Amino acid sequence: MRRKEFEVDNLEECASFLHDRNDGVLTFKGNDGWPKAVPLNYAYAEGAVYFHGSKKGEKMSGMAEDPRAEFVVYEAHAFIPSYYSDPLMACPATVYFRSVRIRGRIEQVEEPAEKALALAALMAKMQPEGGHLPIDASDPKYVPQLKGVAVMRLVVEEMAGKFKFGQNLSEKKRGEVIAGLKTRGLDGDAGTIELMQQYAKHKQ
Amino acid sequence: MRRKEFEVDNLEECASFLHDRNDGVLTFKGNDGWPKAVPLNYAYAEGAVYFHGSKKGEKMSGMAEDPRAEFVVYEAHAFIPSYYSDPLMACPATVYFRSVRIRGRIEQVEEPAEKALALAALMAKMQPEGGHLPIDASDPKYVPQLKGVAVMRLVVEEMAGKFKFGQNLSEKKRGEVIAGLKTRGLDGDAGTIELMQQYAKHKQ
Repeated sequence: MRRKEFEVDNLEECASFLHDRNDGVLTFKGNDGWPKAVPLNYAYAEGAVYFHGSKKGEKMSGMAEDPRAEFVVYEAHAFIPSYYSDPLMACPATVYFRSVRIRGRIEQVEEPAEKALALAALMAKMQPEGGHLPIDASDPKYVPQLKGVAVMRLVVEEMAGKFKFGQNLSEKKRGEVIAGLKTRGLDGDAGTIELMQQYAKHKQ
Repeated sequence: MRRKEFEVDNLEECASFLHDRNDGVLTFKGNDGWPKAVPLNYAYAEGAVYFHGSKKGEKMSGMAEDPRAEFVVYEAHAFIPSYYSDPLMACPATVYFRSVRIRGRIEQVEEPAEKALALAALMAKMQPEGGHLPIDASDPKYVPQLKGVAVMRLVVEEMAGKFKFGQNLSEKKRGEVIAGLKTRGLDGDAGTIELMQQYAKHKQ
């Protein structure tokens, strides 16, 4: 289902979305040959996606055998009820969303300085107010911690976004959906209307 | 990283979480041999997970070759800053979450009645207020729509939850985190405190 009208090839828009979010799902082939889906927090830094975790476990053992992975970050923005544009049929019901999929190979990070960079990027996103000693590979307090944690780097080979905000709607239908969202007024609906208008312009 | 203290083997708790949520990530091996990660809305009904989509595309072609799949549903409940329990080190920073992973094989649904059941379950979750004709395989208005849509059934072979709410904390540390959440008072923090207390009791 590669619906061309939603595809975003602009790497800056994808990167901006990756910086906004903090969790996604990493997929890879497990040791048992089955596909694995692991939700993880991440940081996108220096053009790579970084994860951390335990040194023992399925991620480490599965990806040592086959480093090919895909990572996806998804945000649901608004459920669009069918009746915004059709009084009878359920079919137009949909969700407006942003997602970015990244394909690449997973590498183990061994250098304490790069581990520190990755973990500092994650903390800067999750805890921007600070409140901890800077994560520094030369700080003796962090040396054993950095040694003990596994950090993985997903080297980006392909990145593609899908941002779905009614790009395929006629102007009339778009107006009906916007009117519905204005009436509903849930958290996020005003932001969804802005994105609908932004991406409608892109299409023209 | 199979941290035993967070694992939930109770299928009712997993099912209840699956009914609460409406999107997850389906992973499978693509035609090109790479793992794929596709965010999808789903309905959990009759003990299976149902998805729908286009009849043409990567899901249909990849899973025709190898039907093995994993589907994961994840909800982040609360970010726990490091300074709730440690004035110096960043290490205790974490996210409390619920996730359920399901392993199974994907089957194509061909019967219009089962397609209707799956789509009706999805609509009941996403649009509980109704506002559309009931999805009924015998309704002539829905016959062509049901014929045109692809519906997939993930037959559950294994299901496992991880619900992380500080189960591994000492009573003292748990109290510090609860105090931090009470002071912060973000949306969801009160619910997180309830879940922390619920799962702390389970542990005893």
